[in-house]
Amino acid sequence: MRLRILITGGTFDKEYNELTGALFFRNSHVPEMLRLGRCRLEVDIETVTMIDSLEMTDDDRARIVERCRRSPEASLVITHGTDTMVETARAIAGAGLAGKTIVLTGAMIPYAFGSSDGLFNLGSALSFAQVLPSGVYIAMNGMHFRWDACRKNRESGHFEMPTE
Amino acid sequence: MRLRILITGGTFDKEYNELTGALFFRNSHVPEMLRLGRCRLEVDIETVTMIDSLEMTDDDRARIVERCRRSPEASLVITHGTDTMVETARAIAGAGLAGKTIVLTGAMIPYAFGSSDGLFNLGSALSFAQVLPSGVYIAMNGMHFRWDACRKNRESGHFEMPTE
Amino acid sequence: MRLRILITGGTFDKEYNELTGALFFRNSHVPEMLRLGRCRLEVDIETVTMIDSLEMTDDDRARIVERCRRSPEASLVITHGTDTMVETARAIAGAGLAGKTIVLTGAMIPYAFGSSDGLFNLGSALSFAQVLPSGVYIAMNGMHFRWDACRKNRESGHFEMPTE
Amino acid sequence: MRLRILITGGTFDKEYNELTGALFFRNSHVPEMLRLGRCRLEVDIETVTMIDSLEMTDDDRARIVERCRRSPEASLVITHGTDTMVETARAIAGAGLAGKTIVLTGAMIPYAFGSSDGLFNLGSALSFAQVLPSGVYIAMNGMHFRWDACRKNRESGHFEMPTE
Repeated sequence: MRLRILITGGTFDKEYNELTGALFFRNSHVPEMLRLGRCRLEVDIETVTMIDSLEMTDDDRARIVERCRRSPEASLVITHGTDTMVETARAIAGAGLAGKTIVLTGAMIPYAFGSSDGLFNLGSALSFAQVLPSGVYIAMNGMHFRWDACRKNRESGHFEMPTE
Repeated sequence: MRLRILITGGTFDKEYNELTGALFFRNSHVPEMLRLGRCRLEVDIETVTMIDSLEMTDDDRARIVERCRRSPEASLVITHGTDTMVETARAIAGAGLAGKTIVLTGAMIPYAFGSSDGLFNLGSALSFAQVLPSGVYIAMNGMHFRWDACRKNRESGHFEMPTE
Repeated sequence: MRLRILITGGTFDKEYNELTGALFFRNSHVPEMLRLGRCRLEVDIETVTMIDSLEMTDDDRARIVERCRRSPEASLVITHGTDTMVETARAIAGAGLAGKTIVLTGAMIPYAFGSSDGLFNLGSALSFAQVLPSGVYIAMNGMHFRWDACRKNRESGHFEMPTE
Repeated sequence: MRLRILITGGTFDKEYNELTGALFFRNSHVPEMLRLGRCRLEVDIETVTMIDSLEMTDDDRARIVERCRRSPEASLVITHGTDTMVETARAIAGAGLAGKTIVLTGAMIPYAFGSSDGLFNLGSALSFAQVLPSGVYIAMNGMHFRWDACRKNRESGHFEMPTE
């Protein structure tokens, strides 16, 4: 089974600039994470943006939607900052891409910082993307949510059903 | 959704004894890994054995089968050494536990050793266990296999279909 | 031999706030680092400030000097942000604390971020503090410098002699 | 200042073989550790053996002594298994290498395993080697010992004075 991973940045891929002391983006850690997980799925990796999700514009979202549409693979994972993940999921769902299973995931701690949830989430998202029926989902905290049944709780940092 | 995790030992949970220089088992790292993954699933964790899977006996397997049978949760993940994972999967499948989705997973590198595939595999196995139909599976390398369509390739350390 | 460690913050002790995505200070990692290093020196640890060294004021420096003066231990290590480490070293040297060996050290990458130089530098600074004659020094990059024969090269992030 | 590091193996450099589950030696981690520590000392690294110190023979020790003798650098650090570190220190001291400061160090946990004391000890040993008077020393646990005033306590794993 072949999957596509779209990389958009987010906490997942933040690094520490030791000269300035600021966080920044360089290259994605996803290829290294797949190696570490000894992942043997056939995966195409494509970097769409490399930004904090708070800076994501409608144009960026349109590009992500377009990449989903053009993907020959029916199963996609999108790495994304958690702050606006639901918004991007909504934009993708609005595009009506029939027959595709699209799973967004992210991390609360950068992968480069040692105690990240990123590797757990990537393993989880890739697995959900292989077996869930077509639709747009968010995979965080070991769980999966339909795009329209999910929000980020900004107090706890957790994703949850809106009724929780 | 509620899941049960059965812990049996394996590379997953090996530690380094700094006084003797040997590898050994102490407590499972699964609870810490769930914390690190910010897992919010309701999970019951049960330690069945704490051994290298090469030392696993028929009695040990019978106990694992019994724990699966008695589990009130319909979704189970079993952490297990990779060397005899397929054999244990076969024993569970032979018990005919209708209505249960049971996913075995493990690691090639101990979680305690920093560069482990364990966190990726745990995220993957927990996700497959939530959405696959009932049956006995192995989740390794980002993939899932039915228990009777899988073997460990001892040259590469990978799990694969027998025809590969 | 008894030493005193004064903690002032700096990159050493920065953490990642997973709710805001910003770097911040909480508790010092020095006690954990000493455990990890299996350090058996008798060490008193005292937190003076917990700030980025760019924010360090003359008042902060006066407090550090005062703590050095009052220390019953003749050997001190001070963890400090690298940006103004030399300035604080100068302030301490100006106080004329005869008979004391005071070694400032820091890190380019936060200890919490996995690939830090902090543990190496802490081992180095504690060792220099035990054997150098009295005076004020900076220990970084495996080297030691007298306070008045050292600067931070802001291009490379290295500490060096002013003539380099 | 120029130093020489002689690598002999020991826990420092043990790795986990993911196919066999055994610990083994491959390449030394010392170069990577020096990079991580942003070490700027001029260091020559020489691998003498790559073995567990329990397997070290008199011939191995003779080779280590010979390398110390021929070293153009007056300051040496030797990475070594902790079990027979004192014995090797004695052999070197017996050779009467006047004018050289030789510091043996090691680790209780392999560097590759994430929670190692190795980086702390390497920073410490390199620092002691620069400033101690000529002689043969052991640097462990943040402390330094003359070769003839030191033993490994096999219960605690610590190095200590024989009278402790």
